[in-house]
Amino acid sequence: MFKKVLIANRGEIAVRIIRACREMGIATVAVYSEADREALHTELADEAICIGPARASDSYLNEQQILSAALVTNSEAIHPGFGFLSENSRFAFMCEECGIKFIGPKSKTIDEMGNKVNARKIMQAAGVPVIPGSDGAIFSVDEALKLADEIGYPVMLKAAAGGGGKGIRKVFSKEELPKEFNASQQEAKAAFSSDEMYMEKIIYPARHIEVQILGDSFGNVIQLGERDCSLQRNNQKLIEEAPYDELSEDNREYLGKIAVQAGKSVDYESAGTIEFLMDKSGSFYFMEMNTRIQVEHAVTEMVTGIDIVNEQLIVASGEKLSVSQDDVKLSGHAIECRINAENPKLNFAPSPGKIENLFLPSGNLGLRVESAVYDGYEIPPFYDSMIAKIIVHGKDRKQALMKMNRALDEVVTDGLVTNVDFQRALLNHKKVISGDYDTAFVQEEFLPTWKI
Amino acid sequence: MFKKVLIANRGEIAVRIIRACREMGIATVAVYSEADREALHTELADEAICIGPARASDSYLNEQQILSAALVTNSEAIHPGFGFLSENSRFAFMCEECGIKFIGPKSKTIDEMGNKVNARKIMQAAGVPVIPGSDGAIFSVDEALKLADEIGYPVMLKAAAGGGGKGIRKVFSKEELPKEFNASQQEAKAAFSSDEMYMEKIIYPARHIEVQILGDSFGNVIQLGERDCSLQRNNQKLIEEAPYDELSEDNREYLGKIAVQAGKSVDYESAGTIEFLMDKSGSFYFMEMNTRIQVEHAVTEMVTGIDIVNEQLIVASGEKLSVSQDDVKLSGHAIECRINAENPKLNFAPSPGKIENLFLPSGNLGLRVESAVYDGYEIPPFYDSMIAKIIVHGKDRKQALMKMNRALDEVVTDGLVTNVDFQRALLNHKKVISGDYDTAFVQEEFLPTWKI
Repeated sequence: MFKKVLIANRGEIAVRIIRACREMGIATVAVYSEADREALHTELADEAICIGPARASDSYLNEQQILSAALVTNSEAIHPGFGFLSENSRFAFMCEECGIKFIGPKSKTIDEMGNKVNARKIMQAAGVPVIPGSDGAIFSVDEALKLADEIGYPVMLKAAAGGGGKGIRKVFSKEELPKEFNASQQEAKAAFSSDEMYMEKIIYPARHIEVQILGDSFGNVIQLGERDCSLQRNNQKLIEEAPYDELSEDNREYLGKIAVQAGKSVDYESAGTIEFLMDKSGSFYFMEMNTRIQVEHAVTEMVTGIDIVNEQLIVASGEKLSVSQDDVKLSGHAIECRINAENPKLNFAPSPGKIENLFLPSGNLGLRVESAVYDGYEIPPFYDSMIAKIIVHGKDRKQALMKMNRALDEVVTDGLVTNVDFQRALLNHKKVISGDYDTAFVQEEFLPTWKI
Repeated sequence: MFKKVLIANRGEIAVRIIRACREMGIATVAVYSEADREALHTELADEAICIGPARASDSYLNEQQILSAALVTNSEAIHPGFGFLSENSRFAFMCEECGIKFIGPKSKTIDEMGNKVNARKIMQAAGVPVIPGSDGAIFSVDEALKLADEIGYPVMLKAAAGGGGKGIRKVFSKEELPKEFNASQQEAKAAFSSDEMYMEKIIYPARHIEVQILGDSFGNVIQLGERDCSLQRNNQKLIEEAPYDELSEDNREYLGKIAVQAGKSVDYESAGTIEFLMDKSGSFYFMEMNTRIQVEHAVTEMVTGIDIVNEQLIVASGEKLSVSQDDVKLSGHAIECRINAENPKLNFAPSPGKIENLFLPSGNLGLRVESAVYDGYEIPPFYDSMIAKIIVHGKDRKQALMKMNRALDEVVTDGLVTNVDFQRALLNHKKVISGDYDTAFVQEEFLPTWKI
């Protein structure tokens, strides 16, 4: 096992990883921007190195600085967390070249899965159903019009090299297509220096169902069951659950099987997620693969008892996964609510500031809070607005919902505006309680009627 | 299920019970002393009623006041927690008379188990091994000499009517006995106006092993496995674990069986604990029964996944236990450290005061913190010094120890002196790591060599 690991991230995920390392006897190095001198991850790590100014591009995205920090501290590995450099294949490659283990899949895998067209091809070859769409990149309006006729409207245009919502357009008719295609392609060029476009059918209404996988360097790939992440706003997940109760055992087995097939086809190492859309008829379509730990990994940990970050560290150090597929047993139901410092009344605008009288829920069986804030902490305005994840685990979904309500009721964050009331209202909407929603529910049904 | 429950306690156990109620949809009434206006349990409950001055005898032990509070708030039941009125059979009887459900066993059971001679007889009749000793009272040196010869030295002399350490003497040889017996009997006469003496063998060295049981009003009694609570100072438990790893499966089964037998013999309802001493040869001896929830119940919850307070509420409301013996599966290893506001350097003198910059550990799989403090809270000097319980659950004891170290390292309680450093040193003593200790270890071996 590694003696020392550098964590190239901030916030709750950096703290989560530092804690995992400590629990495994691994020394930790935090990197921090000038805005994060007082951050919890800076405080909790054994060593901490300032890597630049507040702006992420100058610090948490500064590949050279982070590599230098790893080298001067004799770190054997770098855990990238999520966001920032976690899906940057060049950075993973640089780590490989420097003899520092990048805790994640091989740079080649990140690269393959990062390109949507490529990923789709690989998945198709592995027998994973994909969304009807372009088999290769498309470059012109004419190609787009032809394909859209074949697969049927509505269609989604995406930058093949894309991410973060850039270059994405929904097109509902032939008439709209030329204008939208051009705009989208412009955006793609500007954002990713690539005009390769990609088109797929819009699966609607749909549930967002994803499968967590884990792989090691011995070719073992296992799956830890599914998560339902259909409660989203602008493609941002709000509440995540495991398992998806309405999934039949047959479908659960099927999903797990194709997820493992997909992972094995790319010799997948470390933690990854295969995201699917499920349409009304119960058919699944591969959406994308996240080649990193995810925000919502904790709900899977709660229902399986398997620590995903521990497994990442284990396989990165060259060992085998400590669990086999037979060890994976789902037990109970887990729910996660993301708590963001944002103002739902102002279109969810970030609301940084100083937290006073902080109280985060604790106690009782099956409650877990992942956070990087403390009383008196001033949230810097430069980064993601998520301040905590509240995760509950109950014997069933009903109990988990009760536990989440109890937990949300206890939160105190004076001085900050957060989405706690919004999350509570969402959680207690009759359709959320009954499980009757799709990925458009929040945007199209809940938000328009939400009484603030 | 009850609509409203009054919690006749304070501190973390009151908060623990309030949270359990909330998660079951039960409204809660807190009672608080004048010193506890700002206490967390007062804050978190749906209603809160002041029941008197700071001194416990005027408030948390004030039976009439608490019953009145229950009646005026239409509370259907009272949960006594631990300490205070929890093993007061008269209070339980008063509740019964008022038609308010006392959440615990029947007053008769509390009464039977509260008298040591009585409890011993009941256990013996139920086939539970008891410590060799006098079956009835003894009055003379001659009787004492004869019995001590039979059971073997060392022996313990106790006032049969005793309590609070009065009239208790350890006797190591025949030569010492006459003098010690007379002195002890004098003390007993002075303290309790009774010269009835009681003698039992001293089991030494010994492990303190206890079994958690749960019973309902339908005659079902189940056991949730054992806890090892051998790390004690002056009979105060410091660190508790579940399971006791060195217990053979045969012995685990045997202990469970006699615990259930004991519970069934008194038609036990609610949560209770049967405490045993285990001698070097692996023999078990009944020590006492606690007819209430215990501080260390959480370690059992962590390894079984069963919420003991939930079950107390369920059976008190007249329902059956929600789990059967077959549902009880032990998984992994759990450890609890009690965090006290006390000064180990001043013979563990209580050290109340105002907490600044409070940070309690959180995050990751298998960590649970039960506490009733918050940043800026001023700990009143009138009550028990325990401010938090840190509980960890790992796949094995080794991992649980690592997790506990990580958790203890994160604690910040500026302004207070606590036992955190003491607990960490104890936890990391090589004999504690290897599991090689008995109930005298802390007092006789660890403390004398502990470098502050």
